[in-house]
Amino acid sequence: MTFDLKNYLAERKTLVETELFACLPAEGTRPAELASAMRHAVLSGGKRLRPILCLGAAEAAGGKLEHALPAACAIELLHTYTLVHDDLPCMDNDTLRRGQPTVWAKYGEAMAVLVGDALQTLAFETLARTPCPSVTPRLVIELAKAAGGAGVIAGQVEDIQFAGSPTRDIIDYVFQHKTADLFRAAIRLGAIAGGASDHNLQHLSVYGNNLGIAFQIIDDLLDAKQACSDDKPELTCLAIMSKEEAHAYAKETTAAAIASLKNLPGNTAPLTALAHELLSRVF
Amino acid sequence: MTFDLKNYLAERKTLVETELFACLPAEGTRPAELASAMRHAVLSGGKRLRPILCLGAAEAAGGKLEHALPAACAIELLHTYTLVHDDLPCMDNDTLRRGQPTVWAKYGEAMAVLVGDALQTLAFETLARTPCPSVTPRLVIELAKAAGGAGVIAGQVEDIQFAGSPTRDIIDYVFQHKTADLFRAAIRLGAIAGGASDHNLQHLSVYGNNLGIAFQIIDDLLDAKQACSDDKPELTCLAIMSKEEAHAYAKETTAAAIASLKNLPGNTAPLTALAHELLSRVF
Repeated sequence: MTFDLKNYLAERKTLVETELFACLPAEGTRPAELASAMRHAVLSGGKRLRPILCLGAAEAAGGKLEHALPAACAIELLHTYTLVHDDLPCMDNDTLRRGQPTVWAKYGEAMAVLVGDALQTLAFETLARTPCPSVTPRLVIELAKAAGGAGVIAGQVEDIQFAGSPTRDIIDYVFQHKTADLFRAAIRLGAIAGGASDHNLQHLSVYGNNLGIAFQIIDDLLDAKQACSDDKPELTCLAIMSKEEAHAYAKETTAAAIASLKNLPGNTAPLTALAHELLSRVF
Repeated sequence: MTFDLKNYLAERKTLVETELFACLPAEGTRPAELASAMRHAVLSGGKRLRPILCLGAAEAAGGKLEHALPAACAIELLHTYTLVHDDLPCMDNDTLRRGQPTVWAKYGEAMAVLVGDALQTLAFETLARTPCPSVTPRLVIELAKAAGGAGVIAGQVEDIQFAGSPTRDIIDYVFQHKTADLFRAAIRLGAIAGGASDHNLQHLSVYGNNLGIAFQIIDDLLDAKQACSDDKPELTCLAIMSKEEAHAYAKETTAAAIASLKNLPGNTAPLTALAHELLSRVF
């Protein structure tokens, strides 16, 4: 069995970006600076991992790719809004992202707050344009629960409020909510839009959650390689475990993700290859 | 015909606040400070005008009040998120609202950004819990269009970017998007949730839009009475018209709002009385 992941990812990235391009306000739309800043935030690169997972979940569930396209865009718009707000001076105070100025650095703080706000709104609007309207209420509730005050925002609050020595509890909480909740939602939105049975949705959720945890551990391991001494102390899993333990943890959660793909009705080769590929970055 | 508006408003306010109380995270929910700050933002007073309009529209359309309750809460949560973000130091830099410290003044800037974000998410989640799921896609798209980058946020962007002398064009744009779009959406959400026909929805939209414009003119007239000389120049209609002209404009838009309520199948007495009451504040 050979699966050309590199080619698959390039094709899916193009597909997602074409859709994102179409759902953003056209350049020049009044107010012109808002349209420009929203496009800068969304179209300045990124691997499009979450929307690609969303589309892959629809196919793994035996559903149609096209049915999950609005959900895939919604998850990327939602993710982008969190990055725009996380970069603000009152949060992480970052001026660069992917080699480009962050939204607040280029357009000012007030505009960055409003761009993030507008991208969140657009995420829900896009989600509500899913081709099967009968699943819209479920999709909106899924995304809102993952993104809101009991999901991503809960993780971000505990992250910024963190002071002192990290504990296993706080690491688990922030990993779950700040990262894994959105990976899990990406997978679940795709699966629901693709018509997954409750049973298959459950298995795909296990994949999404484990992949999200693995992603964050791998991210911490990669960050440790290039850490600067003047960085503020961060909630990294390496504060509570050795590198060897973190490697083992990443391997274990990746294996759990892949194992949960057994017996699904659709093509699971892409989701399997993606999990292997993420892990390979630290091995 | 006597309609006891004062009693009606008090009853509806209680109804809306009971629902809002129930959909917010309970005090103590982790992260506790987020729950506390979200509750502070939403439960610190306010006339609840937009949700009351939403419920009134459902009834004017001949529908059931209960069907519009989630939409009513959603519109108030959405409105509250915009206030929390508008108060931020990088926007209006306000430390007091309704005699209470603003969210950023009490909980810090980062928390205020996240509280606003979480309230927007909760607005869409609440809306998706409408009892008639078949209208959910329409409701979500309506609210998103009114609230997003072509609605309230467009108005706010042009407001904060405004410099120099106000023109009729910029005043009309900001009045329409920053204020009237959400009044119109409040009415439309209630009408749709209440099962309004397309024809009646159209008439109610005219009411909502005119009432929103009237509300903003009246707000400008009331502000002018208590303006401080050190306030930054603002986009008030009094910059382009006399007080007499503004009074006439408020009267005219209020009359247009009330006229559009003719021939609706439900009880229009509350919406009529509300429009008269708002206008009476400046006469």
